[in-house]
Amino acid sequence: MAEMEGGVDHLAQERNKARFDVDEMKIVWAGSRHAFHLSDRISRLVASDPVFRKDDRTMLDRKELFKNTLRKVAYAWKRIKELRLNEEEASKLRAFVDQPAFTDLHWGMFVPAIKGQGTDEQQEKWLPLAYRMQIIGCYAQTELGHGSNVQGLETTATFDPKTDEFVLDSPTLTSSKWWPGGLGKVSTHAVVYARLIIDGQDYGVHGFIVQLRSLDDHLPLPGITIGDIGMKFGNAAYNSMDNGVLRFDHVRIPRNQMLMRVSQVTREGKYVHSNVPRQLVYGTMVYVRQKIVSDASVALSRAVCIATRYSAVRRQFGSHNGGPETQVIDYKTQQARLFPLLASAYAFRFVGEWLEWLYTDVSQRLQAKDFSTLPEAHACTAGLKSLTTSVTADGIEECRKLCGGHGYLCSSGLPELFAVYIPACTYEGDNVVLLLQVARHLIKAISQLGSGNKPVGTTAYLARVEQLSQYHSDVQRAEDWLKPSVVVEAFEARAARMSVACAQNLSKFNDPEDGFQELSADLVEAALAHCQLIVVSKFIEKLQQDIPGKGVKQQLQVLCSVYSLSLLHKHQGDFLSTGCITPKQGSLATEQLRALYSQVRPNAIALVDAFNYTDHYLGSVLGRYDGNVYPKLYEEAWKDPLNDSVIPDGFHEYIHPMLKQQLRNARL
Amino acid sequence: MAEMEGGVDHLAQERNKARFDVDEMKIVWAGSRHAFHLSDRISRLVASDPVFRKDDRTMLDRKELFKNTLRKVAYAWKRIKELRLNEEEASKLRAFVDQPAFTDLHWGMFVPAIKGQGTDEQQEKWLPLAYRMQIIGCYAQTELGHGSNVQGLETTATFDPKTDEFVLDSPTLTSSKWWPGGLGKVSTHAVVYARLIIDGQDYGVHGFIVQLRSLDDHLPLPGITIGDIGMKFGNAAYNSMDNGVLRFDHVRIPRNQMLMRVSQVTREGKYVHSNVPRQLVYGTMVYVRQKIVSDASVALSRAVCIATRYSAVRRQFGSHNGGPETQVIDYKTQQARLFPLLASAYAFRFVGEWLEWLYTDVSQRLQAKDFSTLPEAHACTAGLKSLTTSVTADGIEECRKLCGGHGYLCSSGLPELFAVYIPACTYEGDNVVLLLQVARHLIKAISQLGSGNKPVGTTAYLARVEQLSQYHSDVQRAEDWLKPSVVVEAFEARAARMSVACAQNLSKFNDPEDGFQELSADLVEAALAHCQLIVVSKFIEKLQQDIPGKGVKQQLQVLCSVYSLSLLHKHQGDFLSTGCITPKQGSLATEQLRALYSQVRPNAIALVDAFNYTDHYLGSVLGRYDGNVYPKLYEEAWKDPLNDSVIPDGFHEYIHPMLKQQLRNARL
Repeated sequence: MAEMEGGVDHLAQERNKARFDVDEMKIVWAGSRHAFHLSDRISRLVASDPVFRKDDRTMLDRKELFKNTLRKVAYAWKRIKELRLNEEEASKLRAFVDQPAFTDLHWGMFVPAIKGQGTDEQQEKWLPLAYRMQIIGCYAQTELGHGSNVQGLETTATFDPKTDEFVLDSPTLTSSKWWPGGLGKVSTHAVVYARLIIDGQDYGVHGFIVQLRSLDDHLPLPGITIGDIGMKFGNAAYNSMDNGVLRFDHVRIPRNQMLMRVSQVTREGKYVHSNVPRQLVYGTMVYVRQKIVSDASVALSRAVCIATRYSAVRRQFGSHNGGPETQVIDYKTQQARLFPLLASAYAFRFVGEWLEWLYTDVSQRLQAKDFSTLPEAHACTAGLKSLTTSVTADGIEECRKLCGGHGYLCSSGLPELFAVYIPACTYEGDNVVLLLQVARHLIKAISQLGSGNKPVGTTAYLARVEQLSQYHSDVQRAEDWLKPSVVVEAFEARAARMSVACAQNLSKFNDPEDGFQELSADLVEAALAHCQLIVVSKFIEKLQQDIPGKGVKQQLQVLCSVYSLSLLHKHQGDFLSTGCITPKQGSLATEQLRALYSQVRPNAIALVDAFNYTDHYLGSVLGRYDGNVYPKLYEEAWKDPLNDSVIPDGFHEYIHPMLKQQLRNARL
Repeated sequence: MAEMEGGVDHLAQERNKARFDVDEMKIVWAGSRHAFHLSDRISRLVASDPVFRKDDRTMLDRKELFKNTLRKVAYAWKRIKELRLNEEEASKLRAFVDQPAFTDLHWGMFVPAIKGQGTDEQQEKWLPLAYRMQIIGCYAQTELGHGSNVQGLETTATFDPKTDEFVLDSPTLTSSKWWPGGLGKVSTHAVVYARLIIDGQDYGVHGFIVQLRSLDDHLPLPGITIGDIGMKFGNAAYNSMDNGVLRFDHVRIPRNQMLMRVSQVTREGKYVHSNVPRQLVYGTMVYVRQKIVSDASVALSRAVCIATRYSAVRRQFGSHNGGPETQVIDYKTQQARLFPLLASAYAFRFVGEWLEWLYTDVSQRLQAKDFSTLPEAHACTAGLKSLTTSVTADGIEECRKLCGGHGYLCSSGLPELFAVYIPACTYEGDNVVLLLQVARHLIKAISQLGSGNKPVGTTAYLARVEQLSQYHSDVQRAEDWLKPSVVVEAFEARAARMSVACAQNLSKFNDPEDGFQELSADLVEAALAHCQLIVVSKFIEKLQQDIPGKGVKQQLQVLCSVYSLSLLHKHQGDFLSTGCITPKQGSLATEQLRALYSQVRPNAIALVDAFNYTDHYLGSVLGRYDGNVYPKLYEEAWKDPLNDSVIPDGFHEYIHPMLKQQLRNARL
């Protein structure tokens, strides 16, 4: 590692304990040799460039931080050009710069929206401008009063046949666009979602390309009010992003700036559907959400890497005869909290990999007008987005707690990682709303079982619902829980029974919607059980592949068991109340789980080394590769602005009079 | 409410739904009529004073924030003097200013340490200076490498018989004092914990009063290095505190500055114990931790108040025929997450009240040299500190998520509430370490059952362990779960069986310490079950008192059932695996729980109004008393520094060249 040059590796002893080939594990983690080398090269490029330093950013005020972000973006773009990086490399570079910026929305939402929803002519006109960044775009959907319910948006785009234009308007305060990243200060254009109104009739929400700011002086165009929506959670974190507010006062755009791939408005004001299937929109959602799942594994693995390394460095209690104290990673309570998260990071990595495949598969089918797998793929990605982001958000905070008091320092990197990550639980579908969508899909699948409509993909097990209702685990010894088939069956039976119980309770309601609302808390639990089954199954499937490298597969098998058995322990109530396992079998699972921790222990440091994160990317003194934590923490402290002077600003005005009992006459 | 003057109450309809006397509930929440009037008066005093405004503080950089804090502290002190506030009033005023400052440590740790551990002469010398704030003190215990394990501290205080002085020294980097609040920039003095060394012999950790800075020019005294340890989690939050680092290079203090109430060093260098019992130290711990439990109920109730009010304001989905959308508080998924937290806030309030009584009781016994109840009181407060702070930290974040995207804005108040609260999980005992202490106490109580040593206080139920081992819940209908005795028995049986199972497993180990380490994850779960039982029992005991006011007691009964049944649902695995309840009984409990949510719903707003928080103290646009959320969110946005100018700093240097394809020649 670059950051080890000339230094001492305080974790060398830990690394020597590993019983597997960490270089081969790096390839597995990255997904391929190509992906590994790409990430490795680009992350070092970023780490070695002083413009990209980020260790000082939590001390910057909002304006300084924002200016610093604009600089990094421009510099990154310059380097991308100079080094002639291809799209894949450029996107990696932006990821390793690790500072949210308007470009995330430009490349991640604005360009894809035009690609997905624009006609060929629209794409030809707008995409080259966007690719060269001659225009900068954002994605203006959410409103002050409207988030999850897109159909409730209030912004209007009214067709004016006289001028062949749409008139965009914000009729109420709550219709103000609110949250779009890149909108507040930078974007010149936006894809704006608004209700299409023709001749007084409301045709629902559609997308429109709208220029927001002058390309000459960057001032908002007439009728447009824009600003930043203010500080968000945490130091630095998402405050480098100009999430914005936008209001329209009768702003006119040409008719051809409505995104018309799926439906069109003619010169005469007629609303017509094209022959492009509407389902394409769901394809895009599958794409965006599988990306979020893959990002979850990255965020969680960063936190786990920091907590694992620091747990090996930190010592507390247990000193015998004046010897060193015990490494905290040796405490079972630490292991019981940390190792399931380590296993989850790997689990999410593999389920993300599988979702990538699923997206490709769905896309190819869509091309061939085969929509049969789309509902299942859509439900599955929605559920996995919800599960992985919730676990990751909580997991980052748990890792922070696992670092004790020092995790609370910004220099630990964990506060910022948490603050910058948590929006993932809300954006692209609130996590609870998404689980309810999964539940609807499950209930539908169950209701159609009799009709010969066989459930597909990740819901295929529901076809065996009769058999699963009879299931009783045959586990007799703790080791039985190491068998993949035993685990999968238990998870299938639990998920199926929870869904079936919901379906039965729903059938007692006259109005199914009333029932769905009344039982929604149960439905969410059933959906979660289904999603956990998917992750467990995909981890197990991954292990059925050929995985080279000394000891690599064995380590992954241990992690897979840790993942599934820790879930089983946490949700033991589900497994017991549905009668899938007995209390005795539950306690055998716990026993086996605790035994597995001892197998993870010697490999823990190597397992996080396999993520191959640079110290720059990790951004954590506690997670340093070389484990040289305390001298560096001490060094970092002195960089705080409060340490610029020995006597703090305000001492003479406020503290000195207090100490000298002269406050009465002080002007405060 | 003051903040309603002239405005419209958008939540009036919600308030009219309440089926109880909210003014009487305010008295119950406050603890007494006196406490209510005190809080009401002082909180309005603070809210109405512009110096105490805090709506802008998340935008301040570290230095500005710190200076602002010094100003508020000095101004508060001036007002305390001008208004001749008594100690109770002064302490309330500091609490409602709601900005962490060095005074928290001066009044909360420095003064109590001298009171508790200083001799009469020491108290006479130092306390008047501290009371007048002629000196400002902090509490320097934790070190860079040493937190939970106080016995592992490295700082030394070596007695020099020649000069009758102690020489304080930081022999290693990890011995640097690290974290003490108020140390970094302000304190003139500290109580420093160091290993007492006399004639080469180590007498363990003792407290010493050390002057750190000159009272003339505030510069650190010779041999002393001090600084701030840098940025911490979140915007504003704890960054108003100067948590500090401190190193000693052979710093000399007079012998009489060792805190000598319990043990002394004579002029000749003899180490002697006084006749003051050492157990007094535990009394102080009981005091500090019961205060933390009471603070937990405040922090959690603030978050719950914000989330509840905003859940009534916010609407999403469910519009019929163009009518308004459904209030999110009407969704069962929202209720299932929010109402258990509302119930927890009340539960923690009452258990805190009881702990206050317990502390008084223990103190009186200590005066009379009765130490019999101390171990149980100590374990009990340790466990309740752990339980309540963990639930509160997670609960605040859950409330943030319950507010959807807008909860991520600093103007929601929730990010800061979270960031400023979470250290409570770590300070005064890491929450996992504390649960292990509780577990030790439980195991000891069980091991002594045969010896006639009857368990007391909150562990008294363990005396009935035989009976509890035979217990099977006799619940047959959902309503049976509303009976307090049914609930308490189930919780007792679950806790007892988990502890007994641990004790049995421990007995299989040759070395009990090995066993304790191996089984620590199970022990933590058993301790948690015990602590939950305490909270449930104390809530139920509270309801056996006479509680006046129309409908007040009924509401509290509903909340008490919500609290206990939501725990039962969450930990169903424990109840089932120990055989305390059957799956059928578990699902009846869940059914009853969901039915109770409908009873909470119409009272929810009034139940959070009963906390009587001013809008100033809540510090949340989403939690405004009048529910006028959206116009105020919109207003707040424009105050962000980024909105000072239409064109952001950095645009001309970085963005313009990018748009104009002139980046190649730009200097970045």
